[in-house]
Amino acid sequence: MAAREERRSFWTWGYVSDEPTETQRREAALRVSARLGREVHVPPIPAIEDITLEKSRIEIPSRLSGFVRADRADRLTHTYGGHRTELLAALRGEFRNPPDAVAHPRTESELESVLEWCDANRHTVVPYGGGTSVVWGVKVPDATDGAVTIDLDNLNAVCEIDDVSRAGKFQAGILGPDLEAPLRPRGLTLRHFPQSFPWSTVGGWVATRSGGHYATNHTHIDDFVESTRMLTPAGWMETRRLPGSGAGPSPDRLVIGSEGALGIITECWLRLQKRPTFRANAGVRFSDWHTGCDAVRAIVQAKLWPANLRILDPAEAGANAGLDGETALLIIGFESADIPQGEYLKHAVTIARDHGGLVDDDELLIDDGDGQAGRRGGAVGAWRNAFIGVNAGLTNGLGLMSDTFETAITWDRWQEFDSTVRARMRRVLDEVLGDGAFLSCRFTHVYPDGPAPYYTFNGAAQPGAENEQWQTIKDEALAAVVDAGGTVTHHHAVGRMHRPAWDRQRPELFGEALKAVKRRLDPNGILNPGVLVDAG
Amino acid sequence: MAAREERRSFWTWGYVSDEPTETQRREAALRVSARLGREVHVPPIPAIEDITLEKSRIEIPSRLSGFVRADRADRLTHTYGGHRTELLAALRGEFRNPPDAVAHPRTESELESVLEWCDANRHTVVPYGGGTSVVWGVKVPDATDGAVTIDLDNLNAVCEIDDVSRAGKFQAGILGPDLEAPLRPRGLTLRHFPQSFPWSTVGGWVATRSGGHYATNHTHIDDFVESTRMLTPAGWMETRRLPGSGAGPSPDRLVIGSEGALGIITECWLRLQKRPTFRANAGVRFSDWHTGCDAVRAIVQAKLWPANLRILDPAEAGANAGLDGETALLIIGFESADIPQGEYLKHAVTIARDHGGLVDDDELLIDDGDGQAGRRGGAVGAWRNAFIGVNAGLTNGLGLMSDTFETAITWDRWQEFDSTVRARMRRVLDEVLGDGAFLSCRFTHVYPDGPAPYYTFNGAAQPGAENEQWQTIKDEALAAVVDAGGTVTHHHAVGRMHRPAWDRQRPELFGEALKAVKRRLDPNGILNPGVLVDAG
Repeated sequence: MAAREERRSFWTWGYVSDEPTETQRREAALRVSARLGREVHVPPIPAIEDITLEKSRIEIPSRLSGFVRADRADRLTHTYGGHRTELLAALRGEFRNPPDAVAHPRTESELESVLEWCDANRHTVVPYGGGTSVVWGVKVPDATDGAVTIDLDNLNAVCEIDDVSRAGKFQAGILGPDLEAPLRPRGLTLRHFPQSFPWSTVGGWVATRSGGHYATNHTHIDDFVESTRMLTPAGWMETRRLPGSGAGPSPDRLVIGSEGALGIITECWLRLQKRPTFRANAGVRFSDWHTGCDAVRAIVQAKLWPANLRILDPAEAGANAGLDGETALLIIGFESADIPQGEYLKHAVTIARDHGGLVDDDELLIDDGDGQAGRRGGAVGAWRNAFIGVNAGLTNGLGLMSDTFETAITWDRWQEFDSTVRARMRRVLDEVLGDGAFLSCRFTHVYPDGPAPYYTFNGAAQPGAENEQWQTIKDEALAAVVDAGGTVTHHHAVGRMHRPAWDRQRPELFGEALKAVKRRLDPNGILNPGVLVDAG
Repeated sequence: MAAREERRSFWTWGYVSDEPTETQRREAALRVSARLGREVHVPPIPAIEDITLEKSRIEIPSRLSGFVRADRADRLTHTYGGHRTELLAALRGEFRNPPDAVAHPRTESELESVLEWCDANRHTVVPYGGGTSVVWGVKVPDATDGAVTIDLDNLNAVCEIDDVSRAGKFQAGILGPDLEAPLRPRGLTLRHFPQSFPWSTVGGWVATRSGGHYATNHTHIDDFVESTRMLTPAGWMETRRLPGSGAGPSPDRLVIGSEGALGIITECWLRLQKRPTFRANAGVRFSDWHTGCDAVRAIVQAKLWPANLRILDPAEAGANAGLDGETALLIIGFESADIPQGEYLKHAVTIARDHGGLVDDDELLIDDGDGQAGRRGGAVGAWRNAFIGVNAGLTNGLGLMSDTFETAITWDRWQEFDSTVRARMRRVLDEVLGDGAFLSCRFTHVYPDGPAPYYTFNGAAQPGAENEQWQTIKDEALAAVVDAGGTVTHHHAVGRMHRPAWDRQRPELFGEALKAVKRRLDPNGILNPGVLVDAG
């Protein structure tokens, strides 16, 4: 497949073409000024040529020079992933620990060559998909004498589409839209839409266990993986393409979530869907957050398996769906390629109403193929636009500290979990950001045995102290989540950011087991050190 | 919890109380005589006291003697699992490689003591749940100087039931019926009913990735595991109870399917269901097997997620559901605790009819809480009774060679897979068992991307040569399945029986990775050697 045409922005989450204009940034600055109660100014974006970059410590052998380069712009755009701490540093022209070289292998054989070279020379390798990691998953670690980022952007083919089994084989470097494009005329779709969808890759999704479109039943990319192919310093590991198996521990489940620490994923067979034509949606209002959560529990436990089942707490619904700030909003959505969905929606709405939810009959949008449910107006439409329109660049550098954290917890512990996490967050936000910090919660995915809550916070940062402030808040968020029994991440991955908390969460012996695997597959410990496990 | 009251039969799959009577065996012999066209006689069942057993090679320290014994009957009933090769040997009084001692720890601390003792003395350990393995998973291997079978029968408590999240924590040694009993009054159920259900345990299900009640969507026990607790020679490994997580490779997925080679599972949190009250069932007839399979594909790809979606080929439907031997039977069943299921069934039946399936409207049994779908008459009821009434003891020793093998394959390859497997099987069956051998196929589980076919064969064995004959047929079955792209097992596990074929199926480096894990968790390689991976 042709190389990607769009160039990644070095200071915002997306492409250069996604970067906000100067005018948009100024308008954002006015809004942020009002929000923070102090005047903020749009900082200038440094010119790439003005940025100081450490000299590359690596000499690239001529046999690799066709696809491994120490090109300045390339090193620069591969220094950071997409977390706000990284984007802020980039905006300020601070590029610590850039990769010494960036490889763009065009074939598996070129990938083998560059990995062998790195292994022989003990160069650190950072596997790189779309660079959208929000957990410091593609940063070069401090302790290395030389690092090569291996960008899979040229390994981005659609290898095969199997219409009968509804599955497709894709190279790992393919981006979301490029994967969907050839499926559309065949009436198929993967329907895995993480927020990073336009810029992230199949390999990245599988390596990080990304969460997608479906709020229930099949939530993670894990559920769509039929087989994987991965190159490790010890050789290739390719699993058999199977709809199901009971033969020993699943090899795919070792690859899924390995975050570039065990190998470089090059291909995956993924399960596809027929494009939905029947849809049914509704937004249900609740005067009380936990009553709304109870309704979610009842709906998911009824196993109706809606594609969408996401509730926003009053703060979130106020900020992003135009509600009054006192009302929670539950978004219910069903879809199917074969079966009208109106009855399913009515069952779910009946359950929601039994729990005190408010929705008028004419707010039930039922589309039996005529496009009705497409017109998502009102609160549901507003929320959808807020989610899709995410652009971390717009407020970058404006002094607004803003971040999210996500987890999962069983229903029996949920209410207490939420209270504890909010109380601890409120305390640290007040302490670090002062009064008026914003804190909200929504569910991104729900299971019969528990929700996956997603918290958002923001407030006024102290210019120059943003990183320390952020770290204090993040430490408290992770501690609150892990202490209260949650997971450090439901779908953002561990990376380097969540690593210390993950070390607390996972069984000690599982860490040891992973280490043993890493020593076997990556004996020199060159692969993405710092994420997941140490080689040691 | 109290120790189990029922005693395992040493020559049939089940308890002593499940053993067929002499009269039943004689009646079976008459039927088998007719089937094989030669007179067969019911062999006598040896008296336990007449069976020769090698002397135990192990001295049990007095501190362990309260729960570790070299009791003769105990060693004998723990020599074999439930495969027909094993049951036939047992019936003949041949007990090769009995365990030298059997442990029945009553607490985790007793389990620790016996495992430490075995590890220190390099005694082979065979973890043992219900002893129903059909893949030689609980046999003592040849190459050992002393083996201790650790039976989890006394670790069989219901630890906790969480009605809110619908989950329960169970000790690994609990049997199916003992798990279900306390759930019933609470309106809950696990609804995991492998054919071994009355005699198998939670620990066994998780260790072997057993397949259960649901034919679609959530098929393996894997899908119901919330967390696991496992003792290894290197210590305890307990995972966090979570409804979902994206934090690194899943630790539970390493435990699930580990077949006693990495540790001894002691506890699991499992997801539970509300007991269904709404049901809808139908049996649909197809004049052609592969047309029926296409209907199954269309139904499962419509994502209606029926609890039952199992098709029997004409041979299977003729032998076990009373059909004419020319007609395939598709059994469709929906169930729910909350939502009437009639409409779902009608959608599925419409799809089936679109594919040429025949079923009268009055054959649709729809139960909206009034018990209608309970009366499963006709072909569907006949098939259900044949499945539930399995008793490997009835024909044990009558000269009928009979076995099954199961796999999974994607839809695009299914027809060719089926043709190839049948052709190879037909050839080897003709060669080994002579004319008239029976071969049938059904689907036990189906996925949007492929079915899990289950083949049954039987025919006239040559008395005295049964094992060699069986091995020849089994080798061919495994080769056919693996050559044609399937998995060596969908839900029977690898054990020692499927091990050589699994070594061909799984990626070489995954085998290496598992070995590395085993070396870390079980450095002396004492745990269930021969299954899954070698310690080496």
